[in-house]
Amino acid sequence: MKHALSEASLPRGFRFAATACGLKKTGALDLAILSSDVPASAAAVFTQNLVAAAPVLISKQHLRASKGHMRAAVVNAGNANCATGVAGHAAAQRTVAEAAKRLGCAAQEVFVCSTGVIGVPLPVEMAICTTDTRPKTAAASFKMAGKRIHLVGCAKGAGMIHPNMATMLAFVATDAAIAPSLLQKTLRDVTSRTFNAISVDGDTSTNDTLLVLANGAAEAPAIRAGGSAHRAFTAALEDVCHSLALQIVGDGEGAQRIIEIEVRGASSEAAARCIAATIATSPLVKTAFAGGDPNWGRILAAAGRSGVAFDPARVDITMAGIRVLRRGQPLDFNERAASNRLLAKHFSIVVDLRVGTAKARYWTCDFTAEYVRINASYRT
Amino acid sequence: MKHALSEASLPRGFRFAATACGLKKTGALDLAILSSDVPASAAAVFTQNLVAAAPVLISKQHLRASKGHMRAAVVNAGNANCATGVAGHAAAQRTVAEAAKRLGCAAQEVFVCSTGVIGVPLPVEMAICTTDTRPKTAAASFKMAGKRIHLVGCAKGAGMIHPNMATMLAFVATDAAIAPSLLQKTLRDVTSRTFNAISVDGDTSTNDTLLVLANGAAEAPAIRAGGSAHRAFTAALEDVCHSLALQIVGDGEGAQRIIEIEVRGASSEAAARCIAATIATSPLVKTAFAGGDPNWGRILAAAGRSGVAFDPARVDITMAGIRVLRRGQPLDFNERAASNRLLAKHFSIVVDLRVGTAKARYWTCDFTAEYVRINASYRT
Repeated sequence: MKHALSEASLPRGFRFAATACGLKKTGALDLAILSSDVPASAAAVFTQNLVAAAPVLISKQHLRASKGHMRAAVVNAGNANCATGVAGHAAAQRTVAEAAKRLGCAAQEVFVCSTGVIGVPLPVEMAICTTDTRPKTAAASFKMAGKRIHLVGCAKGAGMIHPNMATMLAFVATDAAIAPSLLQKTLRDVTSRTFNAISVDGDTSTNDTLLVLANGAAEAPAIRAGGSAHRAFTAALEDVCHSLALQIVGDGEGAQRIIEIEVRGASSEAAARCIAATIATSPLVKTAFAGGDPNWGRILAAAGRSGVAFDPARVDITMAGIRVLRRGQPLDFNERAASNRLLAKHFSIVVDLRVGTAKARYWTCDFTAEYVRINASYRT
Repeated sequence: MKHALSEASLPRGFRFAATACGLKKTGALDLAILSSDVPASAAAVFTQNLVAAAPVLISKQHLRASKGHMRAAVVNAGNANCATGVAGHAAAQRTVAEAAKRLGCAAQEVFVCSTGVIGVPLPVEMAICTTDTRPKTAAASFKMAGKRIHLVGCAKGAGMIHPNMATMLAFVATDAAIAPSLLQKTLRDVTSRTFNAISVDGDTSTNDTLLVLANGAAEAPAIRAGGSAHRAFTAALEDVCHSLALQIVGDGEGAQRIIEIEVRGASSEAAARCIAATIATSPLVKTAFAGGDPNWGRILAAAGRSGVAFDPARVDITMAGIRVLRRGQPLDFNERAASNRLLAKHFSIVVDLRVGTAKARYWTCDFTAEYVRINASYRT
């Protein structure tokens, strides 16, 4: 599933370039452009944070203006260009104009994305060098009408990760042919089960953006809603997004392990998701995971404050395959054996409410002293 | 304001005893009884967590059954007696029965409170030895009809601290005469501005309980709603609760400093409180506080995801007296000087939305690597 992102691995008709433009003091790659040779169907999900960064506002406007037909995304790291006032907006617009000129397309066909410190002015003169920050990558493919359709995605993000949107920045390129409206609908559906079902720290970024470009270069027929090709495309897009989302959690600041929280037996998927999200974001649950502590009481307590009604006396809890609570009664279990299982790189927590049949999954990481060290000195 | 809790410092007609009963392996005091010589008016605020511990359920039932006239509270540390099933409920009831027998009152006149690990059965045979865990204390007094009324409070709690209820356990004893219904109303009012306006880690305990006993032993006239004596009593109760709440934040697990978050210029107090609470519980804001980092972008980003509508372009932010954002535009400031001020034991953050006149305050602590260390190994 994982592989390095290069032009060779991209779907047909896409190009990718990255450079170090000096936004990052270390000299690391910090500006990138992903472009399609022809206008591509585009869909996007943006941060729900009221304080949206200038590039988010501009990208939203461009997607509307171009009616979902875009050519490229230009991305910088090292500076979020958020809360930078009028100058920040102008800098983002000049970045886009410069990229559009070089690509020979209209400015409104270009997405712009930034990530980094909030509130530091973006130096305009550096803004169109292009960037990359060791992106996480994933790929999937399926066959349709004798043609192989490719999807390749990359993402960045390790902190300030929480739904609506969960990711910092993620991009998926595909050579499928699909109308912008169906692409947008499919993306929203897939996002609810992938990027919007992960949490590193419960904080929502001002810059979160997930973009998909579909340029049709595979020369297969256009994907129609509800058909088998649509199901295959949805599954492939979910594969890519699921992989990228879990790579983000696994690379969570200071994280040692990925924990899947499954809530089942709920009266609705929304109820299951709400409880799973509350458990996945509880500092006490996440610090217990850091220490391999099978402290199921904190899981039950987090569920109890989620706002969802359930009967604690019916609940089962299983940690890494070990049943620790059955119908609200604690079970005897080997603490040392349980702790060893909880020190694995991946494990699951299952909470069964035993009231209905709905379920939801959420992915989180452990909360370590290293997270605090990283974030206590981010700007210094 | 602060002083050690002893019988000598209690309001008239109250007694206090503490002992080590063996629930804590260290041999520390772990069981306590606070009692009034005569039935006292009682009011209480309990955890909103759906998974309430056995003692919370029993205390609620007793307060109803006695119509707000109680004699005592028995408290243990070292075991939360939560999710302990039928046996836990029976253990709490035996504790109460034993205390009532020794005090010569009915079982329904006794509150019972527990704090500690969730899900570990409470050893019944130890349950009526009594405990204390270095409680935080506060006192206030006022004069009424020639008599001095005293209020003394104590509290415990350092983690799993978040509104509804924010505190772990807190008790206030007063020799004022006040009807249970007015006492309950006054307590709810005061709690919203004190215990329900603090956060250590955003987790709500299963056991949170705040109790007030008013036994009338000062022999002043009964306090009536709305009069000057009621205002004086409310102010004194708020003094005691404010002091205890801030002592809890200051003793937050791993905390180095107390930060006051004031949101003003809001359209309503509820809007101001919601934004203040979101800032006060943001892991990214709290880790920046740990490092003395004047990272106001994280404060603005937390406000933006609070769910409250406001215009980011109107916002002012002041950190420890230094204006860092004015009408949405970042200001130049001396980073080193700001960082030095943010390393103080106490400081304030003021966010002015400039849309209305409502405001709210919230108190939080910084989020340190020590918090993680404490909670990663709580049970081991």
